[in-house]
Amino acid sequence: MACKPINVLITGANRGLGLEMVKQILTTLRPVSKVFACCRNPDGEKAQELQELAAKNDIIKIIRMDAADPKSIKEAAAQVGSHLGQHGLNLIINNAAVAHLSTFSATTPEEMQDCYRTNAVGPTCIIQEFLPYLRTAAKDSGMPGMSIRKAAVVNISTLVSSIGIAKDTYIMFPCLPYRASKAALNMIVVCAAVELQKDEILCTLLHPGWVRTDMGGPDGEIDAQESVQSMLKVMSSMTEKHNGELLDYKGKNLPW
Amino acid sequence: MACKPINVLITGANRGLGLEMVKQILTTLRPVSKVFACCRNPDGEKAQELQELAAKNDIIKIIRMDAADPKSIKEAAAQVGSHLGQHGLNLIINNAAVAHLSTFSATTPEEMQDCYRTNAVGPTCIIQEFLPYLRTAAKDSGMPGMSIRKAAVVNISTLVSSIGIAKDTYIMFPCLPYRASKAALNMIVVCAAVELQKDEILCTLLHPGWVRTDMGGPDGEIDAQESVQSMLKVMSSMTEKHNGELLDYKGKNLPW
Repeated sequence: MACKPINVLITGANRGLGLEMVKQILTTLRPVSKVFACCRNPDGEKAQELQELAAKNDIIKIIRMDAADPKSIKEAAAQVGSHLGQHGLNLIINNAAVAHLSTFSATTPEEMQDCYRTNAVGPTCIIQEFLPYLRTAAKDSGMPGMSIRKAAVVNISTLVSSIGIAKDTYIMFPCLPYRASKAALNMIVVCAAVELQKDEILCTLLHPGWVRTDMGGPDGEIDAQESVQSMLKVMSSMTEKHNGELLDYKGKNLPW
Repeated sequence: MACKPINVLITGANRGLGLEMVKQILTTLRPVSKVFACCRNPDGEKAQELQELAAKNDIIKIIRMDAADPKSIKEAAAQVGSHLGQHGLNLIINNAAVAHLSTFSATTPEEMQDCYRTNAVGPTCIIQEFLPYLRTAAKDSGMPGMSIRKAAVVNISTLVSSIGIAKDTYIMFPCLPYRASKAALNMIVVCAAVELQKDEILCTLLHPGWVRTDMGGPDGEIDAQESVQSMLKVMSSMTEKHNGELLDYKGKNLPW
């Protein structure tokens, strides 16, 4: 049976993992109807590669969205809605994030609030605002269970969000404000998973590996291409069994 | 061997669990040198019972502190410092918290930020600001290992901070903004525990039970007196083995 084309939205899509996802989704998740590539500043220098990609491929629609700004998320939802028409949105990849690397002793309220705003409040607002489109996709799919081709939110989390192994990872990766915001994100996504279960919308968390991007730095263990290849494979095999779970890019469950 | 008198600080000390702690600490943790009872508005109606208690007992010093306001925490630390003189502060109980009870779908950025400010950023700033006094206490104690009579921060967390059991607890206790902030607090305290280990300062998390207070509501399973009795017993038996752990009021480890 042929698959229905899906609509996908990715935040932080102008560089690093987000940009690589836009590229790979075009081929890996075929058939794709639209890829909404969201970034804070589509006209800026840092979005040039995404602009070039979109110019060559009219499946990609660039959408202005600042995950730290609820008003901007609302505006983006309206804009995406006008492209979707009566069609639903099948997959949101909450990838946009900011990291502050400070230790516990050195961090500031500003750093902590900044990470929380973008990494925890942002994804919450995004799911809330796009929920009607996800519900439409779930209803229209005609498929049983849950999957990313039906209706799903995949949230990019991190190994260092795991409180259970923080005693082992803290010295190498302190980044207190980032960790705290991502532990909160994990909680938020589990709660969303419970709440949206009745709508058959899958909500999961993914650790992309330690990736050589602007965020991961030059010492990362894998490159963005390998990380995204693995994550898309894991995402494609997700079912209702993975609802509210934190997996790494190899598909292994991580401790909370 | 006779115990050295200890100095204790409690936030949110004007009502509920905080007020009950002030009362019980005077007898249970004897000898006590000073109890710094912190609250947002010492002159307000909601601090009247604490004022009456302090009027009868000069061990209690009421300190103005708003856990949501870093400037107020700094001022409180200066004031406590002037009382301590050359003595250290042995025990901080981070008890002040705010709760918003909304579901995932209904919560707002404002509620989320409000909980995070008081429940996650607040305790971080408090530990940072009072750290010099905790270090003094640890150095002066002459005791090996870790304990609340040496130097410790006990952070009041909650069962609903546990991501591992959130699928089971969410329907009964949604309170998304509260949960997210307390999951972040758990991460923060584990990181603090690792970082302050070299100073022999114990950092732990305690779930007080579901208590009939303003926050817990009238349906709680235990009253504040029973909760605080149990928590003080657990706290008194804490050692370096409990550093960076989340225990309930009966001393049982809770999952992250």
